[in-house]
Amino acid sequence: MAMSEPSTIVLADIAGATGYTGQELVRILLAHPRARINALYSTSEDSRLFSEFFPRFASLTQLRVKSLDLGRLAASKASVVFLALPHTVSMGAVPALLKAGKKVIDLSADYRLKDTAIYKKHYGRDHSDAAGLKRAVYGLPELNRHKIKGASLVANPGCYPTASILAVAPCLAMSLIDPDSLIIDAKSGTSGAGKKAMQEMLFTEVHDDFRPYKVNDHQHVPEMEQELSKLGGGRLKLTFVPHLLPLSRGILVTAYARSRNGKKLETGQVRSLYEKFYKNEHFVRIRGENDLPRLKDVNNTNFCDIWVKAFGERIIIISCIDNLVKGASGQAVQNMNILYGFDEFTALT
Amino acid sequence: MAMSEPSTIVLADIAGATGYTGQELVRILLAHPRARINALYSTSEDSRLFSEFFPRFASLTQLRVKSLDLGRLAASKASVVFLALPHTVSMGAVPALLKAGKKVIDLSADYRLKDTAIYKKHYGRDHSDAAGLKRAVYGLPELNRHKIKGASLVANPGCYPTASILAVAPCLAMSLIDPDSLIIDAKSGTSGAGKKAMQEMLFTEVHDDFRPYKVNDHQHVPEMEQELSKLGGGRLKLTFVPHLLPLSRGILVTAYARSRNGKKLETGQVRSLYEKFYKNEHFVRIRGENDLPRLKDVNNTNFCDIWVKAFGERIIIISCIDNLVKGASGQAVQNMNILYGFDEFTALT
Amino acid sequence: MAMSEPSTIVLADIAGATGYTGQELVRILLAHPRARINALYSTSEDSRLFSEFFPRFASLTQLRVKSLDLGRLAASKASVVFLALPHTVSMGAVPALLKAGKKVIDLSADYRLKDTAIYKKHYGRDHSDAAGLKRAVYGLPELNRHKIKGASLVANPGCYPTASILAVAPCLAMSLIDPDSLIIDAKSGTSGAGKKAMQEMLFTEVHDDFRPYKVNDHQHVPEMEQELSKLGGGRLKLTFVPHLLPLSRGILVTAYARSRNGKKLETGQVRSLYEKFYKNEHFVRIRGENDLPRLKDVNNTNFCDIWVKAFGERIIIISCIDNLVKGASGQAVQNMNILYGFDEFTALT
Amino acid sequence: MAMSEPSTIVLADIAGATGYTGQELVRILLAHPRARINALYSTSEDSRLFSEFFPRFASLTQLRVKSLDLGRLAASKASVVFLALPHTVSMGAVPALLKAGKKVIDLSADYRLKDTAIYKKHYGRDHSDAAGLKRAVYGLPELNRHKIKGASLVANPGCYPTASILAVAPCLAMSLIDPDSLIIDAKSGTSGAGKKAMQEMLFTEVHDDFRPYKVNDHQHVPEMEQELSKLGGGRLKLTFVPHLLPLSRGILVTAYARSRNGKKLETGQVRSLYEKFYKNEHFVRIRGENDLPRLKDVNNTNFCDIWVKAFGERIIIISCIDNLVKGASGQAVQNMNILYGFDEFTALT
Repeated sequence: MAMSEPSTIVLADIAGATGYTGQELVRILLAHPRARINALYSTSEDSRLFSEFFPRFASLTQLRVKSLDLGRLAASKASVVFLALPHTVSMGAVPALLKAGKKVIDLSADYRLKDTAIYKKHYGRDHSDAAGLKRAVYGLPELNRHKIKGASLVANPGCYPTASILAVAPCLAMSLIDPDSLIIDAKSGTSGAGKKAMQEMLFTEVHDDFRPYKVNDHQHVPEMEQELSKLGGGRLKLTFVPHLLPLSRGILVTAYARSRNGKKLETGQVRSLYEKFYKNEHFVRIRGENDLPRLKDVNNTNFCDIWVKAFGERIIIISCIDNLVKGASGQAVQNMNILYGFDEFTALT
Repeated sequence: MAMSEPSTIVLADIAGATGYTGQELVRILLAHPRARINALYSTSEDSRLFSEFFPRFASLTQLRVKSLDLGRLAASKASVVFLALPHTVSMGAVPALLKAGKKVIDLSADYRLKDTAIYKKHYGRDHSDAAGLKRAVYGLPELNRHKIKGASLVANPGCYPTASILAVAPCLAMSLIDPDSLIIDAKSGTSGAGKKAMQEMLFTEVHDDFRPYKVNDHQHVPEMEQELSKLGGGRLKLTFVPHLLPLSRGILVTAYARSRNGKKLETGQVRSLYEKFYKNEHFVRIRGENDLPRLKDVNNTNFCDIWVKAFGERIIIISCIDNLVKGASGQAVQNMNILYGFDEFTALT
Repeated sequence: MAMSEPSTIVLADIAGATGYTGQELVRILLAHPRARINALYSTSEDSRLFSEFFPRFASLTQLRVKSLDLGRLAASKASVVFLALPHTVSMGAVPALLKAGKKVIDLSADYRLKDTAIYKKHYGRDHSDAAGLKRAVYGLPELNRHKIKGASLVANPGCYPTASILAVAPCLAMSLIDPDSLIIDAKSGTSGAGKKAMQEMLFTEVHDDFRPYKVNDHQHVPEMEQELSKLGGGRLKLTFVPHLLPLSRGILVTAYARSRNGKKLETGQVRSLYEKFYKNEHFVRIRGENDLPRLKDVNNTNFCDIWVKAFGERIIIISCIDNLVKGASGQAVQNMNILYGFDEFTALT
Repeated sequence: MAMSEPSTIVLADIAGATGYTGQELVRILLAHPRARINALYSTSEDSRLFSEFFPRFASLTQLRVKSLDLGRLAASKASVVFLALPHTVSMGAVPALLKAGKKVIDLSADYRLKDTAIYKKHYGRDHSDAAGLKRAVYGLPELNRHKIKGASLVANPGCYPTASILAVAPCLAMSLIDPDSLIIDAKSGTSGAGKKAMQEMLFTEVHDDFRPYKVNDHQHVPEMEQELSKLGGGRLKLTFVPHLLPLSRGILVTAYARSRNGKKLETGQVRSLYEKFYKNEHFVRIRGENDLPRLKDVNNTNFCDIWVKAFGERIIIISCIDNLVKGASGQAVQNMNILYGFDEFTALT
C-alpha cells in the first residue's frame, strides 16, 4: 500500500448498505474528498434508490442499492469493500474479494476472534475461512495502526470493545492495574441491535425502560479478552455487564479496577499517563477531572472521550463513543484512511 | 340485566391477555372489588404464568395464560368475556359466546362498523357475523349508556374515536358547527400499534421522530363518521390526520371547525355548553381557558380532558385520553360496570 | 404504638406537597383505606387547589395546598406528618412536631446520617437537632422493621440507598463478600432531581444523553456506608458511581463484589440465600436466573426486584426500584403502615 | 455586494454563541470553506473556551467566548455579524453595526414584524430602531432571494414561520386556496425554547408528555400572517396551534385549507404545482404521495420536506424542518451565502 497521489480517488463498494451501519458509511463516504462510493449492495433488495430506504438522502445521492451477488462484488472495479453484513455472512464473501485483490474492511464479527471454537460458540457456525482469519488485522487504529497500514483484511472492532479497550488499554499496557480485577459496566443505545424487527426492541418495550442483558455472557467479551490480553498482564478474565439505554446512539462504559500490588494511585498521575499514551491520537480526548464525559459530547463524532479517577488502590475509568461512528462506520473509514495513506481524520470531523 | 347484589362477584374471562390491552385489563380487574378474573387466554401460547409475560405482576397474581380454544371459552363459567383479540378474529368467537349466554365486550373493531362493505375495505375480510353486528352496541358510555345497560355484546370504541367523538359530540349535538368543516389532527403514542414486531415500530425508528401516517385513510375514520353522523347534521365527512408520537401512551386530539351559518361563538358560552352536556360524566373533565390539557394529566387514568376555545366563526377543541385506558381497557371495564349495574367508576380511579 | 382498631382513620399532614414526592404521597394516601389526608402544605405557595398544581387530580380531590407555617403544622389535628421538604429544612420543623406528640416520617436526608460532620459536609449546614437525630430510626422496613414499629421519627431512606442496601444486604449479613470489594454502578431517572428549574435538567440537555455524575462523591455514599457497615464486616468503603438516565422514573443498580476469602460461589446457592433472607418480605422479589430485572417491572410499584449471579469468586447483584415509590413515598407509606400496625402493603399494591 | 473572489474568506462574528442556535452556527461555520469565525460573544460570560460550554467541540476549535460589548462588536474586523441574542436585545446592537458597515443577520424576532404595535404586544417593548426595521429584509431565501442579495440587515425567520410559510406559499401564490380557511397545526421539539432554566421545560415535565400551548396566540402568528398576506389573497387570518413534542429537534406542520371557490383539486395536479414553484430550490423537497415526511428525514439538515394531498375541496399540506438548522442557524448561513454570492448550499449539505 503506497502513499496515494492527491488526485487519486478510491472507489468503494458497500455490502449491507441498508442497515444502520451501512447508512452511516454512506453518509461519511459521500463527504469524503478522496473516496467515491462505487456501488451499494443489500442482501434482501432489488434495485432501488438508496434514498427510498433513507429519504433523508433524497437529492443528496442518486445511488441505487443492488441485490448482493458475490460474483458481481468480486468483479467490481472498487478497490475497497466495506462489508456491513450480518455475522457469519461476511466470511462467505471475503475469500473471493481478497483473491480479486481488493482491500476488505469487515464490520461484522467474522474476523475478530482468532479462536474459532469461541467464534462458533457465540455465532453458532463453524468458521469457514481459516486463511482469511490468519490475514485479518484487528482494526483499532489507536493500538494497531502499524499493522493496519499493510493489511488487506481489516476486522473492524465491535462497539463495546472499541469503547472498553480504549478505556483500559493504558492501564494494562503500563501495568497499573491487576488485570483480573477489571469490571466493565457498559450502557448502549438501541441502534447497535440493528434494524431487524424484534418484539423486545419495539419502542413501547424500550422507552422508559433500562435493563441489563447477557450478563457476563455477551459475544463481545471474548473479543475484549483477546485484545486486552495482548497488552500485558497475560490472559485476563473480564467481568462485563451490558445494559440497554432508551436512546438510539452511544455507548458509555464505566470501568473499575484495582491497582497492581495494592499500589496507591493518584488521579493526576494516571491522567498524565493516559494523555501521554494517547498524545498523538486525534480521536481520543482525555477529559479533565471536573469535566465528566457524556454521550452528547461524542454522538455523531468519531471521538472517544475518556476520564479517569483514582482513589488509592481503586481506579475508575469512564469512556464514551458513538456506537455507529467510532464504534462501527467511522472507525471503518478511519481504517480506510490508514490503508490508503490519507489523513486519518479525513471526512471524520 | 338486574342491579347486582353487593355480594355478587362477576367472573370474567380475557381472551388475548398477553397484548398491551390485555395486560391493562388484568391490571384493572385485579383491583376490582366486584369482579374476578376467571381465566386468561392467548392465541399463541401454552400454559404459562401471566407473570412470565409481564414480570411486574409477579407476586400479584398466580393466574396462568391458556391457549385459546373457542369451545373451552364458550363453556367457561365466566359470565363476561373481554375479547382483546386481533381484528377479524373476534367475530369468529362471538356467536358461540352469545349463544352460551355470556356478555361480551369486544375490544377489536369487529362489531363497530355497521356497514360491512366498509369493514371489509379496512380490515380485509368479509364480516362473518351479521346477527352479532345487529345486536352490538357501540360502547361509548357518555353517549350510549342507556343502550349499553341492556346489551349482551358491546363493541368497545377505538382509541382515536373515543378521544375524537367526546371532543366534538357537544358541538354536533347542539348544532354549533358545520359538520363538514370538521378537521381532526390526532397524535398518538406507540402502544396503540400493539406488541407485534414491526421494523417501523422499532425504538430506533420511532425515537426522536414524529410523523403522520394514513392521512385521511385511517380505519378509524368510518367509525367516527358513523357515530358522529348520529349526533345531528346528517352524514358528515371528516378530515382526519393521525400522527405517531415518540412516547408509549396517550392520544391528544386537536379539532378545528367552523360555526354553523357563520354564527359568532364565544369561548365562555361554548365551554358552558360543554359543561352542561357532560355534567353527569365522571370521566369527562372540561378544562378552564388557561388550563390546557396534556397527556400527563390523563395517562394511567380513565379521564378524557377537554378544552374549547372559540374565535368568532372558528372553534378549536382539544381532548386527550390514555389510549390503553379510556381508549381501550378502562372503557371496557367502564362498560362492564354499566352492564352489571356497578358504580361506573369502580376500579377506575 | 398500638394495634389500630379497624375503624380508626389516621389523619396525615403532608409538608412539601407540590414536589414530585409530595404528589406521589397524595396519590397513594388518597387510596389508603385507613388514612386520610388532613392538610397539604407547601413552602412557597398561597392557598390553591392541589389540582391546580397537578391537574391530573382534578375531580379526584378538593384538597388545598396551604402556605407552610410551623406553628400551624404543630397544632394540626393530624397524628402523622410526612415531611417532603428540602434537605436542611426538615430539621427546623421536627422538634415542635415531636413535642406535639406527632409521628414524623421525614423524606429528606436530615435524620439519616448519624455523623453530623458528614451531614454538614454534604448538606452544607450544621445539624440543629441532635435530640431528634438520636431518636430517629432509619426507615428501611426490610432491615429495620422492629425499630420502626416503636418509632416517633422515621428517617425515610434515600432512593439510591434503598436500591443498593437491599441489593447487597444479604451478602454482607451472611459474610459472603469482602465488604471492601463492593462496587455499585447506579443509574437513575430524572425525577430524583426534583422540580426545581436547573439548566442541566432541561429536556434538551437530558434527552438522548447519558452521563455519570458525582463519581464516588454522592451524598448518598455515607448513608449507604453507615447502614451497610451495621450488617457485618465492619466499616466498609464503597465505590459508587451514579449515572443519569433519559427517563423520569426508576433506579437500577448493578453491584459487583468478590467473595470473602476467595471462596467459590454458585448462583443457585446465593439465590437461595437471598430468597431465605427476604422470605417474608412482600416488596422484595428475587428474580430467576433467566429473568433479568428491568425498570418496567417495578415502576409505579413499591417492589424492589433483585437478581444475583455468581462466577466463582465474583458476584453480580442487580436490583431496581421506582425511585419515587419504594425509593421515597411508597416506602414512607410502608413505614406509616408499620407505625400504625396496618397491613404493611395497604395502599401499596 | 459583489460576487466574491474564490480566495475571499468572510470573517464572521457571532453574538449569543452559547445558546442552541449559537452552537449550531459555530458547527456550520467551522466547516464553511469561505467563512471564518472571527469572534464569539455571549451576554453573560467571561472569556472562556467555547469548548468549555460545549465539550463536543474540544479539539475542534480553540475559539473563546468573550463578554458581549457593543462597542467592541461594532469595531470588530468581521464583515458579517450573526446575532443570536434574545428578542429585544438585538435591536439595541443593530444600529451601530450597520453604521460600521457590517452586514447583520439577526436570528431574533426584532426585525421581522413591520408593525411595531404588534411587536410591542408580543415582545413587551417599544421597538427602538425604526430605521433598521425599514431596511430589514425578511430572510426566507425561497421567497425573498432577490431582496436578500442586496440587503445589509437580514431578519432571519422564526422556526414555525419557516416551516409554515414554505408549506403553504405555493397555494396562496397560485390562488389555490381560500386564505381564511387556513389552519396550521404545528408540533415542535424543545430546543426552540432555548437553554434557559424553566420548570416547565424540565426533562421530567416534558418527557412522556405532549401538549398544546399558546393556542392561536403564539408570537409567530403575526409574522406568518404578514408574510403570507404578501403572497396573494390579501390580509389573511391564520388559525395556528403549536404543540410541544418530547424530542429535542424538529418541527412538523400539518396545514389544512379549502380550495378557492369550491374548486375540486387533485393531488397530482397540486403536487406538480408545488414542484414547479420550488423547482430551483435546493433545500425544498416535494415528497411523493406514498412517501410521507417525518422529522428523521430533515433533522440535522437544511432541508424542508413538503407533502401535499387534495380531497376535492380540501387540501392537506405537511412540511417539516430541523428548527435549529433550516429554522434558524442553517437558514442564517444560507442567507450569508446569498449575501456574499457563494453557492447557496455551501456548508449546508
